[in-house]
Amino acid sequence: MRMEKDQLDTPCLIVDLVILEQNLKTMQDAVSASGKQLRPHAKTHKCSVIADKQIAMGAIGICASKVSEAEALIDAGIDGILITGPVVTPTKMARLVELLERSPSLMTVVDHPNNVSLLNDALRVRGLRMDVLLDIDVGLHRTGVPADCASELADLVLDCDHLCLKGIQAYAGQVQHIPDYEARLDASRASLQDAIRVFRALKATAPACTILSASGTGTYDIDLAIPELTELQVGSYVLMDAEYLAIGSKEDVDCFSAFPPALRLLTSVVSVNQRGFVTVDAGLKALYRHGGIPRVISPKYESLQYDWFGDEYGRLSAKEGGLLPELGEVLELVVSHCDPTVNQFDCYFVVRNDEVVDTWPIDLRGKSQ
Amino acid sequence: MRMEKDQLDTPCLIVDLVILEQNLKTMQDAVSASGKQLRPHAKTHKCSVIADKQIAMGAIGICASKVSEAEALIDAGIDGILITGPVVTPTKMARLVELLERSPSLMTVVDHPNNVSLLNDALRVRGLRMDVLLDIDVGLHRTGVPADCASELADLVLDCDHLCLKGIQAYAGQVQHIPDYEARLDASRASLQDAIRVFRALKATAPACTILSASGTGTYDIDLAIPELTELQVGSYVLMDAEYLAIGSKEDVDCFSAFPPALRLLTSVVSVNQRGFVTVDAGLKALYRHGGIPRVISPKYESLQYDWFGDEYGRLSAKEGGLLPELGEVLELVVSHCDPTVNQFDCYFVVRNDEVVDTWPIDLRGKSQ
Repeated sequence: MRMEKDQLDTPCLIVDLVILEQNLKTMQDAVSASGKQLRPHAKTHKCSVIADKQIAMGAIGICASKVSEAEALIDAGIDGILITGPVVTPTKMARLVELLERSPSLMTVVDHPNNVSLLNDALRVRGLRMDVLLDIDVGLHRTGVPADCASELADLVLDCDHLCLKGIQAYAGQVQHIPDYEARLDASRASLQDAIRVFRALKATAPACTILSASGTGTYDIDLAIPELTELQVGSYVLMDAEYLAIGSKEDVDCFSAFPPALRLLTSVVSVNQRGFVTVDAGLKALYRHGGIPRVISPKYESLQYDWFGDEYGRLSAKEGGLLPELGEVLELVVSHCDPTVNQFDCYFVVRNDEVVDTWPIDLRGKSQ
Repeated sequence: MRMEKDQLDTPCLIVDLVILEQNLKTMQDAVSASGKQLRPHAKTHKCSVIADKQIAMGAIGICASKVSEAEALIDAGIDGILITGPVVTPTKMARLVELLERSPSLMTVVDHPNNVSLLNDALRVRGLRMDVLLDIDVGLHRTGVPADCASELADLVLDCDHLCLKGIQAYAGQVQHIPDYEARLDASRASLQDAIRVFRALKATAPACTILSASGTGTYDIDLAIPELTELQVGSYVLMDAEYLAIGSKEDVDCFSAFPPALRLLTSVVSVNQRGFVTVDAGLKALYRHGGIPRVISPKYESLQYDWFGDEYGRLSAKEGGLLPELGEVLELVVSHCDPTVNQFDCYFVVRNDEVVDTWPIDLRGKSQ
């Protein structure tokens, strides 16, 4: 039975299939044309169906931020997974090693000598060997070894019988949302200088070190120009959000236009007793309050502004004299920050020309361990 | 096999069973002693096991903010459910009516003539009758009919063959977190004046109107002194969070001490390469960024301050010279805002004296429709 998107119960997430496939292709084409490889991040979409599409289009694997995300991807039959954060506790390391037995191509990162030794010990017990990257801190100061301690840590890894050093990871999260494109370009190049130096030195002494994994959606075209970079771990480009759309790009100083928003949230007007605004059924628990201001997509309601109105509600305000939607009307919004918003839902409704053509489970939802 | 809480994989939510049961009893005792009734809100804990405990202790039913929450509660065998927001779209109204067939004690609220007519029509088709409350706007301006339009709307409901008007709802969400207790007391009393007037007038003409449902955790003791109030729809008192703990109370100007925090989040240190702070594995997707600042519970680390550090990470900073936790160490935090934080996890680990004694599914998680 044909179902239109306006028959969906709200709040819910929809994905425009045409835009999503276009975004997947735009990124893969750009990466391939530069002779690089793509290992996109699943932390954004949290959906193995989308990960499958990325691989079908040419990605060499998928990044996961947590072991539990990697488990869900491997459950779905996906290979070539890189866990982009250090795994340090005994409980989590046991899960990691178990997962490696199921998926020998699984990689992770290390950023500390204790971490390296414990991982090597855990692998020895099971008689396994694991590929790892050195996580280099390139200015975010969140995880990663400082560049000037990298060679010492690399030596330690190279001495470990059960670890195989494959290269480095250098994620410059702090530059991804710099609004001005030229400033972002300068910041990204500057932040990666040390990592490039570390990578060159490493390659000279350890020929197995062939991977320099870096970049994000905000700097993908900037970083493609770096000869040493071998693979990109971009995430948001698939879905997009108000936060990314608001930064400038090479093509447009005010808008990041390369990837239109494939993800939208549908919300219904549930109360209309006030002047100047109406209440809708999407609040903190539907639209995560972080990043940009959600944008209403509708030529009819150009002036409408969303604001959070508690856990379960939002407020849509019109400028003086502006048209307000009616009770029960459904509106479509670009979400503020896609990653944590997606994490609040169980599925995407997949839409083509306003028809709901599929439902994709968000099977990595809640996988924060 | 005995499991200690420090063996749990992180990030995760734990509930201290002794504190939780104490909070349940404190509230039920206070409400019963005032001759009122308790219909606590499930939007906070999103867990039918906790709802069962509330009912076993004397609650007359449970509040739900959405139809899908009510469905999950009814699936778990819970009766006496009040849906505290208006149900307006055809899709949702169909779900509501279906649910009423399974649970005839289900109630909802109405705040608009169109809403009243559509609901009455939907019930007529199925030959059903439903109890409803008038939702009165007492200053939050989110949902609810303004008090001066209430009697007109009440007349409309009373004329509907398939609706039975049982009273009013008057939720003053805007006063719950006013830090100063006396100011909160004044604001809560003032906000409820109109609702009390509406309720008195309604009772005089419609004897079936016996319910005045109001209050929240922040004003529970203030509102218990209102003779007309018949039932309280408090939510957060069970679990508590940093946002509520930071407001003053009758007993303490700086702290809301009646309900200690039963809910905590466990997080592990995953990177220690910086001076003055360490990185932990709980970020936006674990601790919802809203409300108060999460508090570290540990006499050893009194000076540690949490801040969000992206979707998957947090930063714990020490004051100058303060002790920092080690790589792999697990810390316990009071969450910022319990409702949206709980909504990001699939279960609570139930802890008594540091032992994990049970796991409760958060079966209303993600039920935002």
